[in-house]
Amino acid sequence: MDRRTLIKGAIASAATLSSAAALASAPPASKLKAIRRAVDADFDRSLTRIKDWMRLPTVAAEKLNVEQGADYMAKLATEAGFTRVRKVATGGNPAVFGVLDAGAKRTIGLYFMYDVKQYDEPGWSSPPLEPVMFDHPMGRALRGRGACNHKGPEGTFLAAIHAFRAAGVPLPVNLVLLAEGEEEIGSPNLRNALKDAEVLAELQRADAVFMPTPMQGLKGEVAISLGAKGMIECELIASGERWDRGAVQDIHSGMKAAVDSPVWRLIEALSTLVKDGGNTPAIDGWFEHYRPLTDRQRVMLAKLNGTSTDAEVKASLGVKKWIDDLPLAEAMERMTSEPTVNIEGLVAGYTGPGGKTILPTRATAKLDFRIVPDMKAADCVAKLRAHLAKRGFSDIEIKVSGNYDPTETSETSGLVLAQQAFLDRRGLEHTITPRIAGSYPGYIYTGEPLRKPFNQFGLGMGGKAHAPDEFYLIESNNPKVAGLREATMGHVEFLYMLASIA
Amino acid sequence: MDRRTLIKGAIASAATLSSAAALASAPPASKLKAIRRAVDADFDRSLTRIKDWMRLPTVAAEKLNVEQGADYMAKLATEAGFTRVRKVATGGNPAVFGVLDAGAKRTIGLYFMYDVKQYDEPGWSSPPLEPVMFDHPMGRALRGRGACNHKGPEGTFLAAIHAFRAAGVPLPVNLVLLAEGEEEIGSPNLRNALKDAEVLAELQRADAVFMPTPMQGLKGEVAISLGAKGMIECELIASGERWDRGAVQDIHSGMKAAVDSPVWRLIEALSTLVKDGGNTPAIDGWFEHYRPLTDRQRVMLAKLNGTSTDAEVKASLGVKKWIDDLPLAEAMERMTSEPTVNIEGLVAGYTGPGGKTILPTRATAKLDFRIVPDMKAADCVAKLRAHLAKRGFSDIEIKVSGNYDPTETSETSGLVLAQQAFLDRRGLEHTITPRIAGSYPGYIYTGEPLRKPFNQFGLGMGGKAHAPDEFYLIESNNPKVAGLREATMGHVEFLYMLASIA
Repeated sequence: MDRRTLIKGAIASAATLSSAAALASAPPASKLKAIRRAVDADFDRSLTRIKDWMRLPTVAAEKLNVEQGADYMAKLATEAGFTRVRKVATGGNPAVFGVLDAGAKRTIGLYFMYDVKQYDEPGWSSPPLEPVMFDHPMGRALRGRGACNHKGPEGTFLAAIHAFRAAGVPLPVNLVLLAEGEEEIGSPNLRNALKDAEVLAELQRADAVFMPTPMQGLKGEVAISLGAKGMIECELIASGERWDRGAVQDIHSGMKAAVDSPVWRLIEALSTLVKDGGNTPAIDGWFEHYRPLTDRQRVMLAKLNGTSTDAEVKASLGVKKWIDDLPLAEAMERMTSEPTVNIEGLVAGYTGPGGKTILPTRATAKLDFRIVPDMKAADCVAKLRAHLAKRGFSDIEIKVSGNYDPTETSETSGLVLAQQAFLDRRGLEHTITPRIAGSYPGYIYTGEPLRKPFNQFGLGMGGKAHAPDEFYLIESNNPKVAGLREATMGHVEFLYMLASIA
Repeated sequence: MDRRTLIKGAIASAATLSSAAALASAPPASKLKAIRRAVDADFDRSLTRIKDWMRLPTVAAEKLNVEQGADYMAKLATEAGFTRVRKVATGGNPAVFGVLDAGAKRTIGLYFMYDVKQYDEPGWSSPPLEPVMFDHPMGRALRGRGACNHKGPEGTFLAAIHAFRAAGVPLPVNLVLLAEGEEEIGSPNLRNALKDAEVLAELQRADAVFMPTPMQGLKGEVAISLGAKGMIECELIASGERWDRGAVQDIHSGMKAAVDSPVWRLIEALSTLVKDGGNTPAIDGWFEHYRPLTDRQRVMLAKLNGTSTDAEVKASLGVKKWIDDLPLAEAMERMTSEPTVNIEGLVAGYTGPGGKTILPTRATAKLDFRIVPDMKAADCVAKLRAHLAKRGFSDIEIKVSGNYDPTETSETSGLVLAQQAFLDRRGLEHTITPRIAGSYPGYIYTGEPLRKPFNQFGLGMGGKAHAPDEFYLIESNNPKVAGLREATMGHVEFLYMLASIA
């Protein structure tokens, strides 16, 4: 996930007046003070907890450190005070479950991930598995794989719970934790955790669910997100073996004169999936359940635009031109509204330096499809399959590694109202974005059977998720932007807000 | 090169009556006897020479062992009796030149290569750089990279020259050697060796040029080849950098909604290069200089067909079906007559296991184009460039790593007559194939300014060039098929035939 990057810069906050603050009780000042002392006292331990966790990367795509990562997640939960902590079988990497019963009236669900993105990309300034502090324009930051996606932010939340206990203050809400180890491959098995009766029952008790996430922009502003696109991640594989044409193994390329090529076949099939140079899906029926933006969503987007210049946004995202040279507002509207067909990677035949005169027997395209309400992942996979079959490409294997539906949460839910109240109280500018361009498996919570409000929330700042030099801000030189201590206190206060209005 | 594989099985020999034998003088029997004794006495040394050479792989695509490989080639030539041996600058890997002046009337050019194909492919039964003898259905064979392509066959020819000297018998022809170190990347610089006045002058003296190559099929038959397709090997690279669209580095794939993809761009460009599922070039003007097979060439092809069944040919080549389910004869005609556009490899974005949600900034297709007379490589590169430019793809980089023209030699040349005479004398069945489906840089010799007859020739058998378990037959269990000793004697006798009719 790289939600921050997707909206950072693109969406600067415009102050919005909200009546939400009026709904919430102020957190008790004396308790906050005691907790703050505990947060400060525990700072080193909290930072070390994050660093130690980063040294154990669970990479789902590579089946790396799966059980170790789940056990480590369980250990962290237990140490933070969760009970009934256990691994939950999902058919894939295990989920980790736990509850923290504070005897409170309200219950809040937490969505964590214990896996991280691969760390093989070149360009790291220091080894990705050796977390180090460095000077960042915003202060002192922690660098390494998982720093902001998502061990730093999750470790920040754990620090908050530790601080409650250290201060002898009961939590204002009960907590239910569900952590998964396959977020980075599209959460293919997370929903299976809900087949566990205890997990389902405890989550059904929750009033809302959120994922601790550093949401602040350069000036401290926060863009509350109401949803995300759904995603299907898959490989399309053309092979002589399944096609029953071409060669059974790589053969000399001179044979092309009389032998079919699975590589050309894959390219032909791929070409049918898009139009407009790859910018518009062309899969049969793809837009059947596409729901255009509502007027209210357009109003939200309009509020978001205009605070950053086109050049600023492009520079922050590393982009030269928008599709069709669109103006910023239309580019951002596409980010919110449009389904995409993206090629993450191509692999066929000889991939080393120079050439090698072979006719390959196999070609693979790694694709991700982003979908918007009311498109459903399962339906889209079926449409993709039918589209290829109709064109005679049934031999092309569709290997789905992850898929989930879009997610949406109402702006009038207690969760979002509590977030606005919290930000108002802090004096932080905030806006609402109807949907981010990225994806996360929020539908697990917002969809059937739970139907809970869900989004991501937290103070703090991080960046370069999925990229070299991923970082998480630890000591901020801007009082509006939270470092580790302030972000931890942010969760403390936010839990009080949730207790009163979630 | 993998010429043997390309025609093996596909083309079984039909005995043809030739009057060529009548033109040639028989080699002097007493001299042959003395040379044969030397060949037998030197067997171990000849085999060791090949093995030692194989342990030093020069891989042009990886710039591996370039100078060492050239020096080794020079050492081998000097040891065999060549004089004026030296490396010749070509702008790429150096060529190696030498002459062996026997005071003979006729001069024969030799084309060698000292580079080998990459040896990274999986599936080797033993380490590719550790030559070992093993039991092959045809006898005892040598396995390792370079065994048949081309160090084994070239070492066999060197063994023949060593044997002449050991026996105290003068060579019946003078020799001019030109060896290159970039054959496997399409000989991009070989023609530059002809800019060297001494090289050009010596080669101009030659009556014909050939490359020692094991040409025998399972029953000992030989298909004499009159030519080969030309080839262009290149990469097509689409990148955000050159396009000035898309992202300047890999970015989160959610951005696809508003950012162009160089991967889709490459696929779109590639799609314009072919039709019929990749089986017919569709590049503007590609067939302008295409010359269809002549009646005489069709007669040759007709003679070649019918001795192997379709199933036998398919099994030997690892192919399930021909293009359009053609019958064997038409498939073989395509092999001979049709230009091809082949994708050797695709590389874009994330290529590891599973997926990674990025929008890549760069995509590369590795292509090879085979061309037939009277198409010229330089003209075809220009046509490819114009084709892409006309469709707005000028930003797609065309990185040509090798290219050469088709090559043709007359069936009435002294070279081919001598080959027929030699095979007749040996009682070996032989046929003539107008053109192989593969390529080799014969145009260096058959084209301007030399215009010499050129092809590949030799007894013996090898296989799996460019593939795991490449081998070269050393001890044959079929008296019709030459092992190392007989193939060496084959060159001895063939040189006598050349002396009388080349």
